[in-house]
Amino acid sequence: MDRASSAANHTELGAFASRRALLKSAAGLALGASFAGERWTRSFAADDPLPSWNDGQAKQAILDFVAAATKEGSDRFVPITDRIATFDQDGCLWVEHPLYGQAVFAIDRIKALAPDHPEWKTNDPYKAILSDDTKAMASFSEQDWEQVIGATHAGMTVEDFQKVAAEWSATARDPHFDHLYTELVYQPMLEVLAYLRDNGFRTYIVSGGGQEFIRSYAEGVYGIPPEQVIGTTFETKYGYAADGTPTLTKEPKLQLNNNNGGKAEDINLFIGKRPAIAFGNSTGDQQMLEWANGGERAHLAVLIYHDDAEREYAYGPAGGLPDTKVGTFTQALHDEAKKQKWAVVSMKKDWRQLFAFEKEK
Amino acid sequence: MDRASSAANHTELGAFASRRALLKSAAGLALGASFAGERWTRSFAADDPLPSWNDGQAKQAILDFVAAATKEGSDRFVPITDRIATFDQDGCLWVEHPLYGQAVFAIDRIKALAPDHPEWKTNDPYKAILSDDTKAMASFSEQDWEQVIGATHAGMTVEDFQKVAAEWSATARDPHFDHLYTELVYQPMLEVLAYLRDNGFRTYIVSGGGQEFIRSYAEGVYGIPPEQVIGTTFETKYGYAADGTPTLTKEPKLQLNNNNGGKAEDINLFIGKRPAIAFGNSTGDQQMLEWANGGERAHLAVLIYHDDAEREYAYGPAGGLPDTKVGTFTQALHDEAKKQKWAVVSMKKDWRQLFAFEKEK
Repeated sequence: MDRASSAANHTELGAFASRRALLKSAAGLALGASFAGERWTRSFAADDPLPSWNDGQAKQAILDFVAAATKEGSDRFVPITDRIATFDQDGCLWVEHPLYGQAVFAIDRIKALAPDHPEWKTNDPYKAILSDDTKAMASFSEQDWEQVIGATHAGMTVEDFQKVAAEWSATARDPHFDHLYTELVYQPMLEVLAYLRDNGFRTYIVSGGGQEFIRSYAEGVYGIPPEQVIGTTFETKYGYAADGTPTLTKEPKLQLNNNNGGKAEDINLFIGKRPAIAFGNSTGDQQMLEWANGGERAHLAVLIYHDDAEREYAYGPAGGLPDTKVGTFTQALHDEAKKQKWAVVSMKKDWRQLFAFEKEK
Repeated sequence: MDRASSAANHTELGAFASRRALLKSAAGLALGASFAGERWTRSFAADDPLPSWNDGQAKQAILDFVAAATKEGSDRFVPITDRIATFDQDGCLWVEHPLYGQAVFAIDRIKALAPDHPEWKTNDPYKAILSDDTKAMASFSEQDWEQVIGATHAGMTVEDFQKVAAEWSATARDPHFDHLYTELVYQPMLEVLAYLRDNGFRTYIVSGGGQEFIRSYAEGVYGIPPEQVIGTTFETKYGYAADGTPTLTKEPKLQLNNNNGGKAEDINLFIGKRPAIAFGNSTGDQQMLEWANGGERAHLAVLIYHDDAEREYAYGPAGGLPDTKVGTFTQALHDEAKKQKWAVVSMKKDWRQLFAFEKEK
C-alpha cells in the first residue's frame, strides 16, 4: 500500500534517521568544523564516551553493545525506532540509601502538613515520622508508604504538586553527603545516558518511585523529558475549578504499581516495545531486565551492585545490609544475573568517580 | 547548576532542534538539491502543505497556528519540547460509522471463536453478534462492548494479539466503501499529521479505542509509532511460558478508560504536558480539547463535524443520526466549540477530498 508506506516515511524517527544520515554526509563535506562545539558531536569526537568508568567487562559490554547496535549490517544492529533504553532510578541513577529520595520528600511534607492534622501525632505511620523514628520508617511496609504518599501527594492539582516537588528538589539536602539530593546522581550513569542518546537511543526512566515526583526534576537532572518518565502512579481526576478552568486533581488511589512485573507491563503500556538495553539494581528490576532480554533483537541487561561502603553504601549479599528493604538485592538476583549473562557493574571496581561533586574536593 | 543544564542539553529534543538548525544551515549552503527527494523537505518546498483542504477558516486556523508556533519571537511560539499534537482516531483520522473499526474486528473475532464457545449462541451480547443483529449491536452499552472486547482481546500474549490484529487490518474490508478499513483514513488528516511533524510536532493518537489494537496498524497507516498511541487499555500480566521465557498476557480487566475526562488524565499520565494542538470529533473528545485549551501557552483545538452524507456520513445535530452512540456529537458540543473558539471543520465544506482512493475513481 503506497499511502501506508509513505505515511511511515513521515514518522519523526524516520525523519530523525534521515537527518542523522544527512548530518554525517554534511560532516563528510567538511562542514564539521562549524558544529564542533555542539554536544551532539560527542559520539564522533570523544575518545572515551564513559570517562568515569574504569576499563573492565562492564564498560566493555556497554561499548560493544552500542557499537554493534548502531552498525548497519551487524547481526546485532538495532533499528533507530527500536533504540529504547530503560533505567531504574533509585540506586541506579541516584543514591537510594538510607531512604528513597521520594520518601524523604514525603516525610518533609508530613512534617509541613502536620499542624493541619493533629490526629497524625498518635496514628502510625504518621506518628513514626513525626517522632523521627528512623528505625520504624526503615521497615515501613509498601502499604505504609502508600498511605504516606496518598496523604502528601494527593488532593491537589498536578501543577500544584509539581511546584511543591520542584521546591523540594531545589533545596533539600542529604545529611550524609551534605549535598542536594539531586546532586547525588551517579556521574558514570549520566555519561551512559548521554552516550546512548548520542547514538540515537531514547532514554526512559522506569522507576518504582512516583512518576509525577520524578518528572519534577528529571529533565534538569538527567535530561529526560516528562514523556519518558514511567513510574508508579496514582489516579488523577478531571474536573473544573470554580472559574470553569479544567483541572486534573491527584487522587489518593494507586493506579500503576511500577515494580517487579509491573515494570515490564508498564513498559509495554507506555512504549509498546521491549527495551534494547536496560539498567537496574534491585529485585524490583529483575522483570524489566528479563523482559529486555526476552526478545529476539539484540539486547543488553545491566545490573548495578552497591558494594562501595567507602564512597557510598554496600548492601545486598556482599554488603552489611543483606535484608534491606531499600533497594533489595538478594543472592538469588546475583545468581540470576550470572545465569542470564547480564552485565554486572561493581560500583567499587567499575566506577572511577561516583559523583560530579567529587571533582570539587 | 551546570551539570543539570548540560544534562538538559542532551535531551533528544534538544538534539533534534540543533540538527534541524544545522539542516537549515546546510540547505542555506546550497546543499539542498541533493536532499530534494526527501519527504522532510516538504515544509520548505511545498506551496500548500494541506492540498486536500479547501481554503477557509478551518484550514487558515491550522496554518496560522503552526506559523506562529514555529516562529521564534512570536508571542504564540511553542518550544519544540512542547510541540505535542493529539488526535482522536475514530471519526477523526478514519471512518467510524456504522460501527467502530475495532467493534468490527471484535465481531469478526467472536464469529471466529464461536465454535469453542457454544454458550454464546444463547447469551447476549454474543447472541446478537452471532445472529448479525446489527440493530442490537448498534445500541450495545459500554459494558456490552467491554465484555466483547474482554472475550476477544484477552487470554493471549501481547505479541499473539498483535499478530491477530495485524492479520485483520491487512484483510478486513468495509462493505459500504468496498475498501480496507485501513484505507478509510481521511486524506486531509494525513496531510495535517505530516505537516505538523514537518514542523517539529510529535503526533499522538489519543483514542477511546483499544491501544494495542491501534498500535497494530498505526505506524503503517498514520506514521505514528507505538509509543505515541494512547488508548483504552486492559491490564496485562507478567509471567513465564513453560520454557521460562517471560510473557505479558492480556487480561480481561479494564485498566484505563480513555474517554471523556480519561483523555486528559491519560495525556497527563503518558506525556505529562498539555497538547499544543488537539483534534477531536465527538463528546468523548471534549475534555481533551478543553485540556489543550486550558494552558497558558499558545494552543489550538479543532473539532471535526461529520456533515457529508454524500461522501461519508452525516451525524450529530445536522445529520440524520442526532442520537448515534457511535461518535456522539450533541448540539451542546457544537455550542461549546463556538463558546471556546475552537476551529470547527465541516467535512463537506472544508475537505476537497476525503480518501486517497477517490483519486482512483
